[in-house]
Amino acid sequence: MQIIRQPAAMTAWAKEQSKAGHSIGFVPTMGFFHQGHLSLMRMAASRAALVVVSLFVNPTQFGPQEDLAAYPRDFERDSTLAAEAGVAVLFAPDAADMYPKGCSTTVTVGNELTSQLCGVSRPGHFAGVATVVCKLFNIIQPDLAVFGEKDWQQLAVIRRMTADLNLGVEIVGHPIVREADGLAMSSRNTYLAPSQRESALSLSRALALARKLAAEGERNTARLTAALRDFILSFPETAVDYISFVHQHTLQELAQADEDTVLALAVKIGGRVRLIDNGRVLG
Amino acid sequence: MQIIRQPAAMTAWAKEQSKAGHSIGFVPTMGFFHQGHLSLMRMAASRAALVVVSLFVNPTQFGPQEDLAAYPRDFERDSTLAAEAGVAVLFAPDAADMYPKGCSTTVTVGNELTSQLCGVSRPGHFAGVATVVCKLFNIIQPDLAVFGEKDWQQLAVIRRMTADLNLGVEIVGHPIVREADGLAMSSRNTYLAPSQRESALSLSRALALARKLAAEGERNTARLTAALRDFILSFPETAVDYISFVHQHTLQELAQADEDTVLALAVKIGGRVRLIDNGRVLG
Repeated sequence: MQIIRQPAAMTAWAKEQSKAGHSIGFVPTMGFFHQGHLSLMRMAASRAALVVVSLFVNPTQFGPQEDLAAYPRDFERDSTLAAEAGVAVLFAPDAADMYPKGCSTTVTVGNELTSQLCGVSRPGHFAGVATVVCKLFNIIQPDLAVFGEKDWQQLAVIRRMTADLNLGVEIVGHPIVREADGLAMSSRNTYLAPSQRESALSLSRALALARKLAAEGERNTARLTAALRDFILSFPETAVDYISFVHQHTLQELAQADEDTVLALAVKIGGRVRLIDNGRVLG
Repeated sequence: MQIIRQPAAMTAWAKEQSKAGHSIGFVPTMGFFHQGHLSLMRMAASRAALVVVSLFVNPTQFGPQEDLAAYPRDFERDSTLAAEAGVAVLFAPDAADMYPKGCSTTVTVGNELTSQLCGVSRPGHFAGVATVVCKLFNIIQPDLAVFGEKDWQQLAVIRRMTADLNLGVEIVGHPIVREADGLAMSSRNTYLAPSQRESALSLSRALALARKLAAEGERNTARLTAALRDFILSFPETAVDYISFVHQHTLQELAQADEDTVLALAVKIGGRVRLIDNGRVLG
């Protein structure tokens, strides 16, 4: 596995592979790999001749009060895991090379997709994501890119941007990878104190409860939300950021749950660790 | 010369040429070709194996009070001229194919480059330009693109965006092409009534006056601006939109003119026709 740090060198490699007729599958990450990341890499490998993984803790998608400095990092372990997963190139640029002095261009996706859910508590987050993904697509020139469905809103934003800017990259969603007990895998799970681990299960269990209630006939999302809020708050140290029933593509809030409905959850544990999860309610 | 209307067909053609090892030079236009456009096409042809010209009157760069509907169009004449100039493909998409229902992504370049000069009277204009050029670059995948220096601020914005988003396109500026009497060529010159033609010369003559005064030793831009304002207003039916001495790259206003200074002018003729011009003051 090659480790490339310069954007220009990355593009030169990509152009060479393209000329040789090799397709490129891309997995953008912020590192600190878990099984979720490795599953995305395997999916990319099954769909393309060569896999490029980017490892870049993108400063522009963190708010001033967020965990940029504390975000977990372990480059040695990550590069070993990526090599074992058959990754061809680990692209790990410095922030100064991604955002040189004077750079000032931003890619924004419309409020329809970015103002609600995580957009409420994380203003500017999706502009940071859209901009860096646009840059990475241009640097790496992949045929396809794999994104986890845990970040459902992010996936919708990336699909929108990729179509709108004619980026010509196939966007592939990968189902959420979970721990044995149901917790959605996330690098931020490492922030959880042992005593908070049980409370982190409030998200996946709330999803299961919503499915059960919906299967029993409850489709009114206001009543479902109220039931889920009570359920989540019954776990210690939990605070609800949002409980939203949205259309899977438009992310617009729905009054009645149906086959197109995704339940999206964000819960803060211990006032510090913000976790998200989501899933279909029916079907 | 091929005429292509669908973005996907344009990209397929570009990929084929790239695979065959042919470089692509690109000239984005809004049509109604004059000698300025044809000069850009010739420059592109001298630098690349194949020339693609886009003809798209981009609605998103016009303000609500601007001349979108009235913007001059003559597709038959344009396609004849482009074919004669040796253009390989004229890409002339419909607005509905460039901006399908639901699209909502915008590319914006920072205020340092976009809030002054034409950005004052045309809010949103440069976001429209940056977004459509980003799209066109992704659709056409050129090696280089040629822009006229008449739109100096646009050229600076495009250079910035291309670097910031890692678009990998070489941006080539082409000197302003002028009529025999000095008027900078523009599709908007067709709006001028015969009686206004002389007033339109106020811009190029003001540039000449600025150079003369600077050569004589006047470098104070406040005094130069005052002299140019009086000079321009001495022509009938003129109103000054801006007279600005700016750094050629940063577009920041300068108190003293030097070798890096560009004088940028925008003048309204007869309250209706807004013309721009620019040039170095020294050297």
